[in-house]
Amino acid sequence: MTETRFDPSTLRYDANGLIPCIAQEERTGEVLMMAWMNAEAVAKTLETGRVTYWSRSRQAFWIKGETSGHVQELVDLRIDCDRDCLLAVVRQEGPACHTNRRVCFYTAVRDGVEVELMEPLAD
Amino acid sequence: MTETRFDPSTLRYDANGLIPCIAQEERTGEVLMMAWMNAEAVAKTLETGRVTYWSRSRQAFWIKGETSGHVQELVDLRIDCDRDCLLAVVRQEGPACHTNRRVCFYTAVRDGVEVELMEPLAD
Repeated sequence: MTETRFDPSTLRYDANGLIPCIAQEERTGEVLMMAWMNAEAVAKTLETGRVTYWSRSRQAFWIKGETSGHVQELVDLRIDCDRDCLLAVVRQEGPACHTNRRVCFYTAVRDGVEVELMEPLAD
Repeated sequence: MTETRFDPSTLRYDANGLIPCIAQEERTGEVLMMAWMNAEAVAKTLETGRVTYWSRSRQAFWIKGETSGHVQELVDLRIDCDRDCLLAVVRQEGPACHTNRRVCFYTAVRDGVEVELMEPLAD
C-alpha cells in the first residue's frame, strides 16, 4: 500500500485560510476547546509537538500555553473525512480555558436554562 | 443566583450565520464529528432531542441520521467560553461518518505520513 506523505496544503481551509482544530485530552477524553489553524500552524504543531493555533484576533501564531504555561503536548493529530476539520489528541497542562477552567465547554443548556458546570480553578 | 434562559440568538455565529458543533459520544468519549448549525438548528436540536445540523451544501436542515438511521440522541448541549462553538454530548446510533466508519476522524498523521485508523464497518 502506498504511503501518503502528509502535506498541510492538502487540507481544506476556509475563505480565510483557516481550519478548525478540536483539542481532546488523551488521558480522560475531555473535549477541551476548539480553535483555528492555518497551514503553517498545522506544520508547526507537527514539527514542534506543541499545539500551535492561529489567533484570528491578534493575526499571529499562538503556541497554546506560551504565556500561561498551559501547554498542549501533541499526542496524535487526526483529520476528518472531508479534510476540513482536525482533532488534536493532547496532554493538556493545567486548565485549557483562558477563564482558568479545565475545559472551555463549561456551560450547558438544561431545561432551557444555562447552567455553569465548573468554576475557575483556584490560582 | 438568577437563571439565564437559553436564547440561541445569543450565540456567536459566523458571517454565514453558522456555529460549529462538535459531537462526542457519551458512553466512550469518542469525538465523532464536527458540523455546522444555524440558530434554528440549535433550537430544533434542543426541542426534538435529535441533533440537527444545517447542511451548507444542500442549504437545508439535516437531522443527523434521518436517511441513514444513524441518529444522534442529544444527551447534553454545551457552549464554549466565547460562545462561538458548541459541544453536543450524544448517543450515536451506528457509525457517525458517512463513510460508514464509527467516527469521522479516522486519518492520523504519524511520522509525516497519513495513516488510516479504522476501516468502514461491514454493512
